Amino acid sequence: MPGSSRTSVTTMVTVLIGIAGLIFILARAGAPIAGAEPAARGAVVEFTPDGKLKQPVGYRQWIYVGASVTPNDLNGGKALFPEFHAIYIDPESFADYKEAGKFRDGTVLVKELSSIGSKETTSGKGYFLGDFTGLAVSIKDSKRFKDEPGNWAYFSFGHKYPLEAEVSKSPTFACNKCHQDSAKQDWVFTQNYNVLRAAAPRSK
Amino acid sequence: MPGSSRTSVTTMVTVLIGIAGLIFILARAGAPIAGAEPAARGAVVEFTPDGKLKQPVGYRQWIYVGASVTPNDLNGGKALFPEFHAIYIDPESFADYKEAGKFRDGTVLVKELSSIGSKETTSGKGYFLGDFTGLAVSIKDSKRFKDEPGNWAYFSFGHKYPLEAEVSKSPTFACNKCHQDSAKQDWVFTQNYNVLRAAAPRSK
Repeated sequence: MPGSSRTSVTTMVTVLIGIAGLIFILARAGAPIAGAEPAARGAVVEFTPDGKLKQPVGYRQWIYVGASVTPNDLNGGKALFPEFHAIYIDPESFADYKEAGKFRDGTVLVKELSSIGSKETTSGKGYFLGDFTGLAVSIKDSKRFKDEPGNWAYFSFGHKYPLEAEVSKSPTFACNKCHQDSAKQDWVFTQNYNVLRAAAPRSK
Repeated sequence: MPGSSRTSVTTMVTVLIGIAGLIFILARAGAPIAGAEPAARGAVVEFTPDGKLKQPVGYRQWIYVGASVTPNDLNGGKALFPEFHAIYIDPESFADYKEAGKFRDGTVLVKELSSIGSKETTSGKGYFLGDFTGLAVSIKDSKRFKDEPGNWAYFSFGHKYPLEAEVSKSPTFACNKCHQDSAKQDWVFTQNYNVLRAAAPRSK
């Protein structure tokens, strides 16, 4: 009968929409949600099977916490970290820092180095960014770096392009010691990063 | 009959799942997707009814594009923009810039100023961030600022805290002219912002 046939078609269409809906629900269940950076949902950084750190990706879309400049011309022609430093923190650790005021286990900080491109522009004399030259990373991980002071390990991908693709952690005396001795908060130079200082709960 | 009853129940359950699926699809259609900052989905900045720009919020979680430093001590004690400058772009306009290599209508750039906190640390001599001191914003909007050269308007919330809560746009000669004359790309000093240069499609 035409009536019965229409009912069957309606039922079939509804069933198909139901199946489509289910597939959609299942597909979205694994997808990241708004406000969370995709990079921060999985592993923020990757290691090789033998424990080397792979060059991080996507960090220029992380949270910038501050910049410094140690120009070669103020450091006898050879700055320890030439010359601009821009520091980033992974977004989830920043969100946690805003709540807790400390660096959670798993925090990743990236220090990207750039040359000085110009020393005078229309806005005055000073130091202006040139090209990217170097990259370094520090990671706090109480399992992977349980033997490092503060559980912080440091990695340098070089101060000159092309950078290394993957690197072993630096010896403890090369980076960790100086951070332990001089950094204001938990091996991090928060005294130089006003974005972090302003984000900490005590400042709210 | 039991058989017919089971069929009816199965059909009804399937129909309900179908409706649930439809509701879910419709609900998610309007929701932001991963990777897009929630702040960038609505209005990135807000204006008062009489056209003043309200102080932007959340910009420290936008995309950092570069920093410069024009210290007072290199500018006769009074830098035009004292002293550290950190520049941010709103996330959606950055995503668009990566694809198109140009600044879309609606682009918002924030320049946050900080004092110099230190001139020497364990990493050498140079300039290190102090406290936040100032805030300025530029906006490209072909409707709201159709009479401004390049459709860019400039706003300064001050160079000393406390900043203004809302401000009128600066006169064209005060900011726009210099940007028009000296900025490398579309009123923006991309020559000083290596993050933007590296993100532009021609660099890929």
